[in-house]
Amino acid sequence: MRRAFSAVKRLVAHSGRLAPRVVSAKSNLVLPAPFPPRTHTCGELTADHAGVRVVLAGWLLPERKVSKAMSFFPIKDSHGTTQLVVRRKRDSCAGDLAALSDIPVESTVLIEGEVRVRPQSSRRGDGTGDIEVDVSDFVLLNPADRHLPFVPSDEHCLVNEELRAEFRHLDLRRAALTNNIKKRSIVSRVIRDTLHHEGFLEVETPLLLKSSPEGAREFLVPSRVGRSAHEADMHPLFYSLPQSPQQPKQLLICSGAVDKYFQIAKCFRDEDGRRDRQPEFTQIDLEMAYVSWGPPLHQTGSQALNWQIGGHEVRTVVESLIRNIWQQVENVALPSSFTVMTYAEAMSSYGSDKPDTRFPLKIVNVSSLLPDQHRARLDGAGVTLDALVIRQSDCQPFLRANDGELEEPGVDRIIITTDNESNWLDNCRVMPFDIPLAAEKYAAINRVLGMNPGDCIWISQRRSAIEGGSTALGRVRIRLAEMAEKLGDYSPPITPHFLWVTEFPLFTRADPDKDFLAHGRWSSTHHPFTAPMWQDIEAMYAGRIGQVRGQHYDLVLNGVEIGGGSVRVHDAAMQDYIFTQVLQLTKSEKATFEHLLHALRCGAPPHGGIAIGFDRLMSILCKTASIRDVIAFPKTGAGTDPLLKSPATVAADVLRHYGIQPVHKS
Amino acid sequence: MRRAFSAVKRLVAHSGRLAPRVVSAKSNLVLPAPFPPRTHTCGELTADHAGVRVVLAGWLLPERKVSKAMSFFPIKDSHGTTQLVVRRKRDSCAGDLAALSDIPVESTVLIEGEVRVRPQSSRRGDGTGDIEVDVSDFVLLNPADRHLPFVPSDEHCLVNEELRAEFRHLDLRRAALTNNIKKRSIVSRVIRDTLHHEGFLEVETPLLLKSSPEGAREFLVPSRVGRSAHEADMHPLFYSLPQSPQQPKQLLICSGAVDKYFQIAKCFRDEDGRRDRQPEFTQIDLEMAYVSWGPPLHQTGSQALNWQIGGHEVRTVVESLIRNIWQQVENVALPSSFTVMTYAEAMSSYGSDKPDTRFPLKIVNVSSLLPDQHRARLDGAGVTLDALVIRQSDCQPFLRANDGELEEPGVDRIIITTDNESNWLDNCRVMPFDIPLAAEKYAAINRVLGMNPGDCIWISQRRSAIEGGSTALGRVRIRLAEMAEKLGDYSPPITPHFLWVTEFPLFTRADPDKDFLAHGRWSSTHHPFTAPMWQDIEAMYAGRIGQVRGQHYDLVLNGVEIGGGSVRVHDAAMQDYIFTQVLQLTKSEKATFEHLLHALRCGAPPHGGIAIGFDRLMSILCKTASIRDVIAFPKTGAGTDPLLKSPATVAADVLRHYGIQPVHKS
Repeated sequence: MRRAFSAVKRLVAHSGRLAPRVVSAKSNLVLPAPFPPRTHTCGELTADHAGVRVVLAGWLLPERKVSKAMSFFPIKDSHGTTQLVVRRKRDSCAGDLAALSDIPVESTVLIEGEVRVRPQSSRRGDGTGDIEVDVSDFVLLNPADRHLPFVPSDEHCLVNEELRAEFRHLDLRRAALTNNIKKRSIVSRVIRDTLHHEGFLEVETPLLLKSSPEGAREFLVPSRVGRSAHEADMHPLFYSLPQSPQQPKQLLICSGAVDKYFQIAKCFRDEDGRRDRQPEFTQIDLEMAYVSWGPPLHQTGSQALNWQIGGHEVRTVVESLIRNIWQQVENVALPSSFTVMTYAEAMSSYGSDKPDTRFPLKIVNVSSLLPDQHRARLDGAGVTLDALVIRQSDCQPFLRANDGELEEPGVDRIIITTDNESNWLDNCRVMPFDIPLAAEKYAAINRVLGMNPGDCIWISQRRSAIEGGSTALGRVRIRLAEMAEKLGDYSPPITPHFLWVTEFPLFTRADPDKDFLAHGRWSSTHHPFTAPMWQDIEAMYAGRIGQVRGQHYDLVLNGVEIGGGSVRVHDAAMQDYIFTQVLQLTKSEKATFEHLLHALRCGAPPHGGIAIGFDRLMSILCKTASIRDVIAFPKTGAGTDPLLKSPATVAADVLRHYGIQPVHKS
Repeated sequence: MRRAFSAVKRLVAHSGRLAPRVVSAKSNLVLPAPFPPRTHTCGELTADHAGVRVVLAGWLLPERKVSKAMSFFPIKDSHGTTQLVVRRKRDSCAGDLAALSDIPVESTVLIEGEVRVRPQSSRRGDGTGDIEVDVSDFVLLNPADRHLPFVPSDEHCLVNEELRAEFRHLDLRRAALTNNIKKRSIVSRVIRDTLHHEGFLEVETPLLLKSSPEGAREFLVPSRVGRSAHEADMHPLFYSLPQSPQQPKQLLICSGAVDKYFQIAKCFRDEDGRRDRQPEFTQIDLEMAYVSWGPPLHQTGSQALNWQIGGHEVRTVVESLIRNIWQQVENVALPSSFTVMTYAEAMSSYGSDKPDTRFPLKIVNVSSLLPDQHRARLDGAGVTLDALVIRQSDCQPFLRANDGELEEPGVDRIIITTDNESNWLDNCRVMPFDIPLAAEKYAAINRVLGMNPGDCIWISQRRSAIEGGSTALGRVRIRLAEMAEKLGDYSPPITPHFLWVTEFPLFTRADPDKDFLAHGRWSSTHHPFTAPMWQDIEAMYAGRIGQVRGQHYDLVLNGVEIGGGSVRVHDAAMQDYIFTQVLQLTKSEKATFEHLLHALRCGAPPHGGIAIGFDRLMSILCKTASIRDVIAFPKTGAGTDPLLKSPATVAADVLRHYGIQPVHKS
């Protein structure tokens, strides 16, 4: 360490910046003293810099001794790694340079030296791989402990997740995480560039918001507003943290101040630990005034055909945003417009409202193939027969998976024997009644299904009225792909599959997550501000609530929902009707929306928007298993932060300032 | 309204997009139906568009009837205003067009028409001022209430602040607020462009953080982590919302993942209502690894002379950031580097640690002019005499203010009579003892002070050891300028005055705001992570705490502190010494910093950063009196949101999920 001091002295003298001053230190401390700026980063030097005297700063990686007289040290910063050459006997500072070997790995050093081109045989041809820096002087800026919990530069030894989470500041030094953080910044820049270019303004909306009837799922923030020492018996007041900036952004658009709004927004959700969810997360949030049905059909491509709802402008800008990200970050050219599929088609053909269309297995409706009287019986019972056919001939990647242990409640798997007339439909457990079909009928059905002896059919009955997020056969379909991928039989294509799913039911009674608020009433499938399709307005006012489709759109990537949005209700009377007549909100429930109703009454423009999950998007772009790998300081699945040790207890007297106390005092 | 329907029908038919469909509405509702996209915004059309058929959407402003047959309607959106011309008898839709007059102002309409160049005499020469749009068709998209709380387009009638806050969504429609919101987005873009260009990465840090010993000033967020129905007696756990991302950003830089970090970050402060502070606010937050003392002196200009601390790179990037903002947003070229002043000089010459250097009044040290024996007596008492001289000859703008009612405790105002020998120093109340000075001594002092009969001197004694944010004379100085401005005698220059103030005392006992935590111990003037100046490290280890100056820098604009930062301690042993020996933290207080100490022990690089108050910066750029005018949805001074009605009470059963209850149940 003493040597490092004299190096400070000399290096500072070299640079001529300041007269060196060595502080009389207690113990063996390395005290901060002036040092010159680095001239380059560790990822910057190439053969073009040959002969240049440089000052580099970075983390020292393990030494490789070439001979008694010479060692290689890699020095690393967030930009890259540069090889240092240390020759011990070269000149008078030999003694000092030898001290580099005594410095613990992962210490930060400042070195001065000259760039040399490597011998031809040891060039790597990638920037710093062509050069090395011949060290003439160094300063130990900050020594690392000799016993770190783990060594982040050691790529061969990835310690367990708990330890890495506890020492996240060290884990982030790993190149994999460093690259994710860097990529996230780059993508956020592409997003902002694109949206600014499209005329969007970024507006910050409040995080200290109003707690709403859905409060149980929102984080609360106790407030001291209006409190004084004399008002200890006052009812405590709370802000809440937003699950999304939905209401502020609609108010903003209603105000007319901003025509196209966006925000890369922090959002909060107080959910019981779901796998790979974070209590705070980030979304790309946007909203546009005057969204419409787009230009006349003859001016647009066939892709517009399936987009039967409004929000044309949102669709266009999101597609351009996503295209820019993939072009600039992945160098992948995406199609000029994404496929559009209705919810009804997604559910019936793929058994999912976020279908993975990267593989072609499709569900077929068997009811429709049955003779009229059988179909009528099924219809009468309100059920539909669905089938998924695994053909020997064209389902190669899925055959082994299909032979596996896969089981799904309510689904039968039947191998079609050579004996085509075997009564397979009747034998399956999921049928509500016997179907005594003639053998030639079976043969005809099998012909339509393209089945041959030895093929396998998965069969299931479902309620004819489609609802919810997936069907039993949809889940079989996904699990077949997962197993096939595990077996190595199937690998998803590299090009991403983007898909819009539209025309969701506007209201639902089938979502158990919502019933704790709905108590048997209708719930909004997404949120109560989504506008009905104009084709279904009549049905809504006539009370045929289950038939109303919303102007909602989900953006699906490779079977993962990465965003969702809608055209909003802009008509105060209709919004009031939805609150009061459809959702049957109580007076106090409705009160939390009064400001929005008022905003609609001030001549709100028709508007719509979308929110895209930024963490999920980044985890797909970074090909990570968990969104934790694309967040600098994530929480665990349980909601704790092992590094900063949150959440934590708070002293009772602090709580009293907010008029609250623990339920049971200890 | 019925007419509007037929207009929908016709316009839709025009565009050929969809067959029109008029829904059978209950009552008189205008139901959303498909409409075509607008072709232009209301701020876009110029004489170049003459003859073009356009579709515009916006808010209808009050009609101006030109004749029975013709009216002008301005139509407004967030981009601008366009004049519509409505000729009633022109064609068969005459009846329909007349209906425009029945539509309430501030309603949103979609119009179709043809761009016409205005007659030469009525051109305004500024974009849409050269044209008008001859309306051929319209749709009423959303009618506004006839009785709005106020009409935002009426610039002559600005209603009271309370009403505007309650209906913020309407107030934001005022051009003044709209422009502020727009400017804020533009400035945030300049900031990001500059910092990305400088190699910074934007990284999001957590908002759900750890509550620290300073908890009383932080917002808490109750958490359900680890709770279940059976653990009602568990101690409740809390996150806290960050006052700044200080610790996460230091951890990030220590990790080495990012070399230059920035974030436009939301921060929170639970303060008792201070004027024009917000419980949530935004700062431009940045941090850099390997900050240094800059290049050798001979390579830098004379401005570098006064910057005796590290953090050279932070200074450079902030100056370039600020220069870019003023250049691109205000079209003002700022100097290539900003003035640097030490805290000691700022306090002694301007009586403020954020001096307003736009006007030249300077405080002078009278002690130093006294004969040795008098000076020694003052020094012995630990006090210094300061004076502010208002000369008839060169203080023109401040003379009337100086004659006013201004009083400041501990300050005497004395007019120098023609009788120079009058014992003015001895007569003033602030002197601790009599000074029997000879007349020629007075004359000599007055000569040095440049005083002439009739001039006025403000005189004050202060503790010789400079501390705190301002002196009594500093406050007089500011109030003189405020009064002179009010009287119309002085107007501040238009060009902004930027100033760095450096070399603050690192520790203080003089800040009453901090004593509720310090309990008589030393406090950090800014925060405990600021590094001492290397010249003062010896003094710190020797226990001469009051002498230690920190590597802290404040950025001051026109006498307002808009940002502050420092070089941080990167040496774990020194940081530990500061926690333990200087600040004398208890074990549990220190425990909240353990992760930071560990990060320093992992070979943390020397680093430093700054945080600039974005709201304050914007309010200066927008020339607004309050930061509320540059925030889309601000809180009142009391911390409430009159629009969204927060904070609010929360049901007791919701609180129980978090293990908390009101102190007194009602």
